Amino acid sequence: MTSHPLDVVAVGSAIVDVLTTAADEEVAAAGLVKGAMALVDARRADALYAAMGPAVEVSGGSAANTAAGVASFGGSAAFVGKVRDDQLGEVFTHDLRAVGVEFATPPATDGPSTARCLVMVTPDAQRTMSTYLGAATGLSPADIDAGVVARARYTYLEGYLWDPPEAIDALRRAVALAHQADRRVALSLSDPFCVDRHRKAFLDFIADDVDVLFANEAEIVSLFEVPALGDALALLPGHCDVAAVTRGPLGSVVVSAGQVVEMPAEPVDHVVDTTGAGDLYAAGFLYGLVSGADLAGCARLGGMAAAEVISHVGARPQVPLSTLVAGPPPSRSCAPE
Amino acid sequence: MTSHPLDVVAVGSAIVDVLTTAADEEVAAAGLVKGAMALVDARRADALYAAMGPAVEVSGGSAANTAAGVASFGGSAAFVGKVRDDQLGEVFTHDLRAVGVEFATPPATDGPSTARCLVMVTPDAQRTMSTYLGAATGLSPADIDAGVVARARYTYLEGYLWDPPEAIDALRRAVALAHQADRRVALSLSDPFCVDRHRKAFLDFIADDVDVLFANEAEIVSLFEVPALGDALALLPGHCDVAAVTRGPLGSVVVSAGQVVEMPAEPVDHVVDTTGAGDLYAAGFLYGLVSGADLAGCARLGGMAAAEVISHVGARPQVPLSTLVAGPPPSRSCAPE
Repeated sequence: MTSHPLDVVAVGSAIVDVLTTAADEEVAAAGLVKGAMALVDARRADALYAAMGPAVEVSGGSAANTAAGVASFGGSAAFVGKVRDDQLGEVFTHDLRAVGVEFATPPATDGPSTARCLVMVTPDAQRTMSTYLGAATGLSPADIDAGVVARARYTYLEGYLWDPPEAIDALRRAVALAHQADRRVALSLSDPFCVDRHRKAFLDFIADDVDVLFANEAEIVSLFEVPALGDALALLPGHCDVAAVTRGPLGSVVVSAGQVVEMPAEPVDHVVDTTGAGDLYAAGFLYGLVSGADLAGCARLGGMAAAEVISHVGARPQVPLSTLVAGPPPSRSCAPE
Repeated sequence: MTSHPLDVVAVGSAIVDVLTTAADEEVAAAGLVKGAMALVDARRADALYAAMGPAVEVSGGSAANTAAGVASFGGSAAFVGKVRDDQLGEVFTHDLRAVGVEFATPPATDGPSTARCLVMVTPDAQRTMSTYLGAATGLSPADIDAGVVARARYTYLEGYLWDPPEAIDALRRAVALAHQADRRVALSLSDPFCVDRHRKAFLDFIADDVDVLFANEAEIVSLFEVPALGDALALLPGHCDVAAVTRGPLGSVVVSAGQVVEMPAEPVDHVVDTTGAGDLYAAGFLYGLVSGADLAGCARLGGMAAAEVISHVGARPQVPLSTLVAGPPPSRSCAPE
């Protein structure tokens, strides 16, 4: 076993994305809510797939995308999540290790197949996701390697982890180990419907355990059940040290100890597929934090990573994100750590 | 079983492409010949994959790409080829049927896994391929449906089919059935190294059985073992009715009964990945033939399809090729049928 320090260990569902382009009418005809993530069982996944156009398979999974992004910036990252020992599991494992992410969770040797997310990308570059969690539901406390969590400055959890009931014990163990090792905990709220499903659990978890919170506008408004972003931003400082809220083409806003930093979005020539935008924003932001950037620097790195990933199909960077960071390293003043 | 007429039945290896970007040095370090297709065994495939960067999985297979292209133009196409009943086999089957290609070859229920082609795309958009044929080698004469061949105006074979010895009986049966039904036979030479491996078999087959031949410059020069394209073009009329030779950015040249038609390449803003260029040229050309286009019209449709496929990653069209055909339908004069 290696023992070097890690910037981030990300815990989440290990998923291969099956991406296709679709018209708005096809999304509606499939009974899906455009822009959202819906959980589906194997039978519904098969039916949706059969009705889908030709697709490409690209490794995904929200927290895994974030781990890949951190590694792509030059940070050190590990991922914890469950695949089956099948072809898509091999694809997922390969793609993560190929970008330098440590991934040692043993694959399931029986039970459901590796998780798939059917992603329909509409002409407006919006993505609508139907996730069959499969083997990802089998993540157990035994899969949380105490050494990996202790080595990582940030333990990053995706909100989707609250969906498979079996995974809750695993994430609780990860958080407990992180606290024991005096490490920081970050959470992404994942999806407004996911917030709806787990609002109380998220609020408690954020109050007790979360140092850095990632959300988009719809998620944070849903979390606090308030009418507008401003109301949510006003509530955030009581809940966690740092909260970064993404706003799509409006950029992001970061709230921390009375500071509010607004960062415009990076310009993008042509938005192709927004899958992974939030995941990569979190990657850039976390990389900024561990690099000692100030909050504006973190938000800028997040925006750059998001801009790269929405400019092509698929939720993982296609160029090393380290090459996007031009000029001097991010300012080391006002670092929140 | 359906019984409507088909424009093209394509017979070939059923393959999922595993595409990654790579530097020239990585191609060389892997011991590969840039631009070529090499056959690899499972062990070598695993070693190459382990050394590769993160990849995307996209259905491929030369003849299958051509069938998908014909369907994308609005033609009717079937494909015959062998997958295993595994996840990549499902991916291949889905992607072909999703574009309207008939595909009814029963998958293998044991033996090696579905074929994979590891494709390294270098910054010059050239692709270098390492193919693990796996289940594709199991194509047998029993897989050739006499009804499908009889319904198809063209039976299209990829030269790669001569590689797995077991598949030769299958392709011979397909050709015999096509002749019995008074249908036409088309062949693509696939790859210069493939031509080297099977030159005598190809020359005999072309002389006896082939109506329409597709090749690129390197392949046709290798076939006749002549120094230059002009020498090969002079020899072609004695060998088949129509020969279409692609020349990359120089377009294509078509030779038929004393006619020589030169067609410049379609302009492409940014060549991203040349995987599938020849396959899609053949698709456009065949669609032109069955639509009654003249040779120039066929070459133009071939060039348009090739231009679409090299402008993005992956060897299948990303937009319906029918949408590229602007203006009136191709001229119906001088049709070679």
